[in-house]
Amino acid sequence: MVTRININADMGEGYGHYQIGDDAAILTIVKSVNLACGFHAGDATVMHDVCMQAKELGVSVGVHPGFNDLWGFGRRRIDMSPRDLEYMVAYQIGALKGMAKYAGIEITHLKPHGALNNMAADDPEYALAIARAIKTVDPSIYYLALSNSEMEKAALKLDVPLAREAFIDRQYTADGNLASRKNPDSMIRDPKVAAERAVRMVMDQEIVAIDGTKMPTPFDSLCIHGDEPTAITVARAARDAMVEAGIEIVTLPEVMAAKEAA
Amino acid sequence: MVTRININADMGEGYGHYQIGDDAAILTIVKSVNLACGFHAGDATVMHDVCMQAKELGVSVGVHPGFNDLWGFGRRRIDMSPRDLEYMVAYQIGALKGMAKYAGIEITHLKPHGALNNMAADDPEYALAIARAIKTVDPSIYYLALSNSEMEKAALKLDVPLAREAFIDRQYTADGNLASRKNPDSMIRDPKVAAERAVRMVMDQEIVAIDGTKMPTPFDSLCIHGDEPTAITVARAARDAMVEAGIEIVTLPEVMAAKEAA
Amino acid sequence: MVTRININADMGEGYGHYQIGDDAAILTIVKSVNLACGFHAGDATVMHDVCMQAKELGVSVGVHPGFNDLWGFGRRRIDMSPRDLEYMVAYQIGALKGMAKYAGIEITHLKPHGALNNMAADDPEYALAIARAIKTVDPSIYYLALSNSEMEKAALKLDVPLAREAFIDRQYTADGNLASRKNPDSMIRDPKVAAERAVRMVMDQEIVAIDGTKMPTPFDSLCIHGDEPTAITVARAARDAMVEAGIEIVTLPEVMAAKEAA
Amino acid sequence: MVTRININADMGEGYGHYQIGDDAAILTIVKSVNLACGFHAGDATVMHDVCMQAKELGVSVGVHPGFNDLWGFGRRRIDMSPRDLEYMVAYQIGALKGMAKYAGIEITHLKPHGALNNMAADDPEYALAIARAIKTVDPSIYYLALSNSEMEKAALKLDVPLAREAFIDRQYTADGNLASRKNPDSMIRDPKVAAERAVRMVMDQEIVAIDGTKMPTPFDSLCIHGDEPTAITVARAARDAMVEAGIEIVTLPEVMAAKEAA
Repeated sequence: MVTRININADMGEGYGHYQIGDDAAILTIVKSVNLACGFHAGDATVMHDVCMQAKELGVSVGVHPGFNDLWGFGRRRIDMSPRDLEYMVAYQIGALKGMAKYAGIEITHLKPHGALNNMAADDPEYALAIARAIKTVDPSIYYLALSNSEMEKAALKLDVPLAREAFIDRQYTADGNLASRKNPDSMIRDPKVAAERAVRMVMDQEIVAIDGTKMPTPFDSLCIHGDEPTAITVARAARDAMVEAGIEIVTLPEVMAAKEAA
Repeated sequence: MVTRININADMGEGYGHYQIGDDAAILTIVKSVNLACGFHAGDATVMHDVCMQAKELGVSVGVHPGFNDLWGFGRRRIDMSPRDLEYMVAYQIGALKGMAKYAGIEITHLKPHGALNNMAADDPEYALAIARAIKTVDPSIYYLALSNSEMEKAALKLDVPLAREAFIDRQYTADGNLASRKNPDSMIRDPKVAAERAVRMVMDQEIVAIDGTKMPTPFDSLCIHGDEPTAITVARAARDAMVEAGIEIVTLPEVMAAKEAA
Repeated sequence: MVTRININADMGEGYGHYQIGDDAAILTIVKSVNLACGFHAGDATVMHDVCMQAKELGVSVGVHPGFNDLWGFGRRRIDMSPRDLEYMVAYQIGALKGMAKYAGIEITHLKPHGALNNMAADDPEYALAIARAIKTVDPSIYYLALSNSEMEKAALKLDVPLAREAFIDRQYTADGNLASRKNPDSMIRDPKVAAERAVRMVMDQEIVAIDGTKMPTPFDSLCIHGDEPTAITVARAARDAMVEAGIEIVTLPEVMAAKEAA
Repeated sequence: MVTRININADMGEGYGHYQIGDDAAILTIVKSVNLACGFHAGDATVMHDVCMQAKELGVSVGVHPGFNDLWGFGRRRIDMSPRDLEYMVAYQIGALKGMAKYAGIEITHLKPHGALNNMAADDPEYALAIARAIKTVDPSIYYLALSNSEMEKAALKLDVPLAREAFIDRQYTADGNLASRKNPDSMIRDPKVAAERAVRMVMDQEIVAIDGTKMPTPFDSLCIHGDEPTAITVARAARDAMVEAGIEIVTLPEVMAAKEAA
């Protein structure tokens, strides 16, 4: 039996004259991208262009909704009513579905951005508001959620398709949470370490916490970041090691279809 | 044979804590609304709420895309590349289609807002960019265009469904254009005048210019404005007179279906 | 000896085509206004116009900085770095000082808006960042702070001019905080009650909490709100009762000068 | 007698997480910078940081106001009322004056950005609105205007301090205008050509048009761009050649003081 896994990364975070991240490099590594939708980053033209590139490369495209905060790049926590939050997310799903028509592709998943992702991981109201937006606008979309988060619970509760993600380049604490970025050791920047770790995570479906605790953890996708200086190197090393170990890197829907067929 | 006509108006122009226009009154008069999509006015929550109300009242909902200029309420002309313009419109169509899922309704038409409407009426590049956005994101949507405008030509050229509109409360010049608002007589503010004029326009499919010239002009929808102090009174008088004259006020798709069946 | 007090209210919260609040009515009641600066509300034209009106009526003008969140009207809490927050406030002070040149007036005070005011009342980092902005851009400006708040402490710590405010139309708890708006009795909507309360507060420099506890509390200004339906009536009743009781309603700098001279 | 000239460039065009241009390199070449003010680019933190760097390097800082159009980077023409335009510029002047307090520096000049600069060069209403903003908010600021433009006329008409600029790296037509960027030869990308040209322009106070016509043209500052790939190299070559030719590169106020003393 072939082991399959998805790799996802954020993309399309430019805005007008501004560019950020190395989208071209990322597209050679991942099989699914989380595409900014004009609120914390991205604009209609960027969204169009990334959809076209993703289509050409067989990469699946997901919604990456964020707070309406370009200045803060969506990394500032904002307290919103669940009602406004839900419609803000629904709007962004719709907008990306519109742009995806240019490429003739379907949107495959949704992963919240930055502070919205962090808040929804912990806050059931935020997590449920996002789940309702998915369920209403396009119930075929996977809610791509951190394992064990409130988002996972919300997807299960509302019967929204759920896909789980884990991080290649971030350490976990023994309770299953991500170690704080304030801890300098929380980021994994050594390509060799990341590569070995990634293969082991996929093969064993298990995460090893920063203190050595082994945590069996189901996940369907591995997330990589594009914004650390070492990110691309780390991600490529992890990808290459997985391929060498016989792991097939596929789009998120392909991982899910294989799982559902099993 | 029953004569049918549509009446349309702009709606949903509030933004967050800001409200504008008397949406409740307008919804009792028109059968189609042009809904702002968050660029020149409107936000995701407003869009949701108007979709729900329109559904309940059997009013059809169209996209009302505008420039990304909340401060100028979309009334400032902005020179954009046709590429950015097209994707900006496509984005807004997608966003509204997303919000319409809450009401379970389909979007029936698109009418540009303010300065975008004025520019697209005269500029083939703008008119075509909008037509391409419709054709890509949802080719079932009617391009609601001023009769004789570049938008009309663009719809015909790209084979996008075309619906034509005329104005109840605005005077025309003998060349078929709207008289400038700088001319104090260009707005019709007398309900009785507007009422007679509306009935005659529909019955004769003819517009009488400000100098008396009669211009045979096909149109499918009559536009009313909500932002003049006299607008609601004028619009209601025109509507009532048409109903009394046996004209049926229906949604835009119903007008078009009747026409296509004929 | 004449008792003097200031009354302040928020103003200039329109934006472009949007209007909100009854600025004309408020200007007949208060002697100091807190003027929005384009981030949560207000635009350059509104700022100009309010400065001109205030000048004409002898009303003093203060900065009313808010979060960069027009959609949320500055009422959503946003987690910012103290550095970004400080410069965001400094920017708004500078902008208003620019617009005040049209009226030839000096800016007299600063009071944060909405969620920023609430956060700065409790969070020393926010309170100090605002104090540093005042101290750098214009150290003659009074930091208008809720009595007993972190803002009060920050002003004292950094030697920024301090003016204290209390609320006419809001109940306090026995620990000196404002009663939550979620408590339906926390707003005082009866003009007679508000009038008696205002006179007593000024005469006794004492606030009576919702449970009857008397709290001696120094304050220089009474804040009224313009956004409750009953606000204008309540405010006018309070003002009239104070005038009748021989209390002089003056600008904030006049209160402070009298106090400093005493 | 020493010949003195100023070199100016746009700076501080980052926004939040976005960076653009090589500000550090530009600061080693120019003696005056035009600093974006948060409308088309720049934010309060960027403005703070550039003021501090400029102070340290003895570089003078000017306002670089632009349209409220971050998406279009201020390069899209927007039709505004002169009233809104004037206050929009006044607001940006005030905001930058606020941030300059951190460095304890005075703002020395104003140069409009992008489409606003292009429109104000040709349109007297725009040019005058900007002049009125300068005159009201800070009449000590030089209006840095393209020679022969409507901005030059507006400054002279309203008695606003005028400084003229010419371009090192752009060709002129024989009528004194800049050759269109659509003409591939309109940009000068050869460092040697630019260097010779710059020295000659300063020594002779004369511009040679693309067809060889010699146009005596007074100017006080030479503008360089940071956004062409060759820009920094071209600018540095021009600067070095001028220094070698005995031309002193000084801040804009120093050029003007020398001129006024002469």
